[in-house]
Amino acid sequence: MPVVAVIGDGQLARMMQTAAIEIGQSVRLLAGSRDSSAAQICRDVELGDYRELEDLRRAARVRADGTIRPVDAVTFDHEHVPTEHLRALQADGISVQPGPDALVHAQDKLVMRRKLREIGAPVPPFAAIESVDDARGFSEAVGGEVCLKARRGGYDGHGVWFPDADELPGLVEKLLADGVPLMAEKKVDLSRELSAMCARTPSGEVAAWPVVESVQRDGICVEAIAPAPGLGDGLASRARDLSVRIAEELGVTGVLAVELFETRDAAGQPEIYVNELAMRPHNTGHWTQDGAATGQFEQHMRAVLDYPLGDVAPTAAVTVMANALGADEDPDMPMRERFAAVWRRFPHAKIHWYGKGYRAGRKLGHVNVPGRDGSPEGVAATRREADLAAGYIVTAVWADGYVEK
Amino acid sequence: MPVVAVIGDGQLARMMQTAAIEIGQSVRLLAGSRDSSAAQICRDVELGDYRELEDLRRAARVRADGTIRPVDAVTFDHEHVPTEHLRALQADGISVQPGPDALVHAQDKLVMRRKLREIGAPVPPFAAIESVDDARGFSEAVGGEVCLKARRGGYDGHGVWFPDADELPGLVEKLLADGVPLMAEKKVDLSRELSAMCARTPSGEVAAWPVVESVQRDGICVEAIAPAPGLGDGLASRARDLSVRIAEELGVTGVLAVELFETRDAAGQPEIYVNELAMRPHNTGHWTQDGAATGQFEQHMRAVLDYPLGDVAPTAAVTVMANALGADEDPDMPMRERFAAVWRRFPHAKIHWYGKGYRAGRKLGHVNVPGRDGSPEGVAATRREADLAAGYIVTAVWADGYVEK
Repeated sequence: MPVVAVIGDGQLARMMQTAAIEIGQSVRLLAGSRDSSAAQICRDVELGDYRELEDLRRAARVRADGTIRPVDAVTFDHEHVPTEHLRALQADGISVQPGPDALVHAQDKLVMRRKLREIGAPVPPFAAIESVDDARGFSEAVGGEVCLKARRGGYDGHGVWFPDADELPGLVEKLLADGVPLMAEKKVDLSRELSAMCARTPSGEVAAWPVVESVQRDGICVEAIAPAPGLGDGLASRARDLSVRIAEELGVTGVLAVELFETRDAAGQPEIYVNELAMRPHNTGHWTQDGAATGQFEQHMRAVLDYPLGDVAPTAAVTVMANALGADEDPDMPMRERFAAVWRRFPHAKIHWYGKGYRAGRKLGHVNVPGRDGSPEGVAATRREADLAAGYIVTAVWADGYVEK
Repeated sequence: MPVVAVIGDGQLARMMQTAAIEIGQSVRLLAGSRDSSAAQICRDVELGDYRELEDLRRAARVRADGTIRPVDAVTFDHEHVPTEHLRALQADGISVQPGPDALVHAQDKLVMRRKLREIGAPVPPFAAIESVDDARGFSEAVGGEVCLKARRGGYDGHGVWFPDADELPGLVEKLLADGVPLMAEKKVDLSRELSAMCARTPSGEVAAWPVVESVQRDGICVEAIAPAPGLGDGLASRARDLSVRIAEELGVTGVLAVELFETRDAAGQPEIYVNELAMRPHNTGHWTQDGAATGQFEQHMRAVLDYPLGDVAPTAAVTVMANALGADEDPDMPMRERFAAVWRRFPHAKIHWYGKGYRAGRKLGHVNVPGRDGSPEGVAATRREADLAAGYIVTAVWADGYVEK
């Protein structure tokens, strides 16, 4: 069976492993630590640093039948591997999926926006910020509605700032002095966030899941609702088509997540803008594990190996994913008692747990709740269940005051 | 998180591991070989022999936080661990699930039938066979319709014989001389085989999946259809209730499979008899991975840890599981090309592959196909897809002559 090397050791790599096992494989990890989320459950682990070419090279080869051969594909659970290393691996004859030419658009927010503008994808006005003057000029052009972003390395609200006109010059000066490459875009007056996800193979097959609503709190996704409630057919297919076109135009392989802002145009009609891209399984796609014919982790494995893609039809009227984010304090109640309480109350809740140490704000796991009732009331009830379950696991408290009899 | 030690290294242990990972755990294996189906994908593997108490003891303890503590539960992917060793583990303070008092009923076919008769569960007439005279007497009593069985160690048609009256004495003499403990039961004129599966926790919670039809060829399950087509509500709930009662009366913990014969009584009405019991995830429950809210592997992990059980509702109108059994010869076409052909033709087919070497008749994997149409035609179409897919993987031939365009 083929071997996929996954660079990274977080929960995405962990869940790739469960998908890989079921289709007869076992991923090979490049992990920073033996105790990481993925390494603790994988047999084939190389310890190393994804910023070191020699470590990447070690992970990208596998010993089989007494000889050393390249793995069948190298893929990632994050976007932080240096582009030049990926090119070096390709020069070694390794199949890197997604390849560096695609991945750079998920690594550098400015490169991404330039490319999206070039292909006519909807993005808010933006500019490179290489000086305080650049920042001032952009701020004037957009009426002071500035969102400042680090071009590389941001995630979950890190590397994003919303300075007012007074704060802007000082902030830009400081960040540039710290060596942070910057860009700015016009703040979007959004009504909500959506996520359009698809997978694409090196041969060019593409399959797109239904578009979901992604509920954010403090820049972190806390909930995903599939399909996005109240999304008109027109907007849904525009968003879906957009993800497919981006995958094709950028040469993405594996899973692609297109994070979108939904907003209203001058006539009050909904429209969408691209916010970010991720070229790997994504938090807003976790619902597919329990709510779609093919989950994103299996699909990613299949896509990077150039297998035909799986059916992406939903298997429930609505599926809600709620993240379990570490609270300020880890309650005394043992984790297994919290799981038990959740399962007693919600026997249909699917807990996915990452094996990570408890820390405030950290993504420790998620809960998927599929529901049979896709009406607004049904969706609301399913959301409530998912949120209650995820909240209980991290706080040992039922947010609705529920008392078990 | 709790640690479950699984004694055994086959595909059942392998699939327990994927279920365990998703709920934040990693199973600890007692494996006979590093290359076995389960050991090749597990990190925490003890090599050893399940017939040796010291090896079992080694697997039943885990090093955590610098100390050695018992695992949270010991469970099994087969029934062959000697009862006295399980009692010794219990005496050590280890949680053995299912415990030896329950498991003996899945280990010894005579003990099982005596117990089932005692609790009033329907079993065909049977007798212990300790001599040729016993065999002759039983044969006369049942009009020569004898099914002879090894009391222990049989599976997939091994250890089962259907001798005629002439063959019976010689066969019994030979088997007894070889030290095979025997029993006999009256051959059942069956219309089909069913399987009723449930899970039970040490606290006594029970949840039963829908009853399935199990299609056999040469004593091996080749297909399972969930729910069993055309099973009346009355018979379905009788079968389901029977599995629950057996779990309760025998003190089963974890997953229980009750293999049933469906037959017709004198009035032409369908009735059921228990054929065999298995106290672990079972081949006829693989469909739950892709066709039920909670799969049998997750349910088994939850049950042996005394967690609340998951929802057992089906998620599709029909789900068909087809086993991929090694053909006489392994075709030249690489396995990944066969997978690709199956997925191209059936994007909704879910392949589960065990990582085992190819051998004629061996269970190498299975394919689950969920279908939206529960009508007889819909079920027939879903069966055809599952059978074609599983067949193609092992033969590289489409049994229906399909040619890809």
